[in-house]
Amino acid sequence: MKHQDNHPFDIATGLTGEDTTRHGRTSDLYANMVGPFGGIIAATLLRATFDHESRQGTPVALTVNFAAPVSEGGFDIAVKVIRTNRSTQHWCMELSQQGQTAATATAVYAIRRDSWSSTELPPPPAVSDSGAGVRVTAEGLPAWVYRYDIRYVKGGIPPLIEIRDEKAFLGSEGIQWIRDEPGRAMDFFSLTAICDSFFPRIYVRRNQFVPAGTVSFSVYFHAGAEDLSAVGDSAVLGHARANRFYKTYFDQNAEIWSQDGRLLATSSQIVYFKE
Amino acid sequence: MKHQDNHPFDIATGLTGEDTTRHGRTSDLYANMVGPFGGIIAATLLRATFDHESRQGTPVALTVNFAAPVSEGGFDIAVKVIRTNRSTQHWCMELSQQGQTAATATAVYAIRRDSWSSTELPPPPAVSDSGAGVRVTAEGLPAWVYRYDIRYVKGGIPPLIEIRDEKAFLGSEGIQWIRDEPGRAMDFFSLTAICDSFFPRIYVRRNQFVPAGTVSFSVYFHAGAEDLSAVGDSAVLGHARANRFYKTYFDQNAEIWSQDGRLLATSSQIVYFKE
Repeated sequence: MKHQDNHPFDIATGLTGEDTTRHGRTSDLYANMVGPFGGIIAATLLRATFDHESRQGTPVALTVNFAAPVSEGGFDIAVKVIRTNRSTQHWCMELSQQGQTAATATAVYAIRRDSWSSTELPPPPAVSDSGAGVRVTAEGLPAWVYRYDIRYVKGGIPPLIEIRDEKAFLGSEGIQWIRDEPGRAMDFFSLTAICDSFFPRIYVRRNQFVPAGTVSFSVYFHAGAEDLSAVGDSAVLGHARANRFYKTYFDQNAEIWSQDGRLLATSSQIVYFKE
Repeated sequence: MKHQDNHPFDIATGLTGEDTTRHGRTSDLYANMVGPFGGIIAATLLRATFDHESRQGTPVALTVNFAAPVSEGGFDIAVKVIRTNRSTQHWCMELSQQGQTAATATAVYAIRRDSWSSTELPPPPAVSDSGAGVRVTAEGLPAWVYRYDIRYVKGGIPPLIEIRDEKAFLGSEGIQWIRDEPGRAMDFFSLTAICDSFFPRIYVRRNQFVPAGTVSFSVYFHAGAEDLSAVGDSAVLGHARANRFYKTYFDQNAEIWSQDGRLLATSSQIVYFKE
């Protein structure tokens, strides 16, 4: 997979150091309200395993637990190959700053072979034109939002809901076209970050901003490197919704579809919220 | 939470040793085709954190990565508190046998407070009677199936599909009532195992048994201890489906509902399969 060294995404997820201890640095361009955009941290943790010389296969599953906000500046990632089997490989990662753990993660890689295949999940209501939808104006939003071209097909965050006269909209469902800004060819890292690009569903559901932060985030990859190459720098279609908001935590599931209707990834996260 | 020491589930998930290194032993009563039922391993890993003297709050998220089959006999679980914040706590666990890692896991606990709450996901087609459905006959199936009373409302595994004349059924969706056998009051451990009690969706979809094994499994808990106490030993309603089968891996999502319509947990897993 070709790295695109000059893209802000690649600078933000870039790592130096040895295979077992990588060094990274937060990028202002992917800053969130507190610390960096979670998607960029998840992508960086995945990259730390992908670039390891012992790596075998491509990612199948990634889980990141956010234990504390990542502060502006440098960080270390400890990378450990837990077990390498004939066709699978298991990893643990730990991101720390000044000796304090800020995130832990696990990844499963696999050598995937051709097999009977089928997509059961129906794609979201067909929107064939990736230019359709209301473009998010990043103004007033955290820096990372500027690093994506997001066009809402359904749902949105305030004040978009008012603009679209969706005051009566009561659910948290969102459908959006999304691509890196500027454009960048899709790979496992950008797909990971895009899985986390849906605003916390509480914003949509309650039509207001409240303090919220993901505590655990998982991605399942349903694509090989060749499938992602085929996506190129096209926008992909994201579909997200919450299942339950309960006692200061809610979950949200999301799927990422290519324009030609391939399900590239399914994702879930559980998010703290404060009323 | 009261432990129910004489129940086979509590014997199978029982641990001795120190907080940071627990010792367990596989139980024939929860054996699967290769190694123990994954749900019992996941429940045991959660118990290793729950019983730790530093534990704060109740589980919000659990992820288990199955790196290798667990062999019959003893195993060790290394338990590490990664970070304790004001309201959350992060854990890493590693299950090993003879110094080889067989599973890794992470857990997030939280002190949950009352908040605005809402369940957006609609429950599966209403089936008010937990006695409804076709009872699974465990005959010919692995031992762990005998440890549950499972009644299919929709979907099933061969030869149940034929019995129910669902040959034309093409999806992997399953709905089932389930409770421990013999009965046992619900807690976080049994809820974890029940999240993994759905047969691999490939069996349902293809109406045949093929080699299959979960590589990563996650549970999000939408319930506190008091919610689980209210369930008691009643059956709960499970709903599961696959999203995509692709190149020897598929994912499946599941939800567990109480009889009074509370969403207790959402769960996902990604599973290896061989044609």
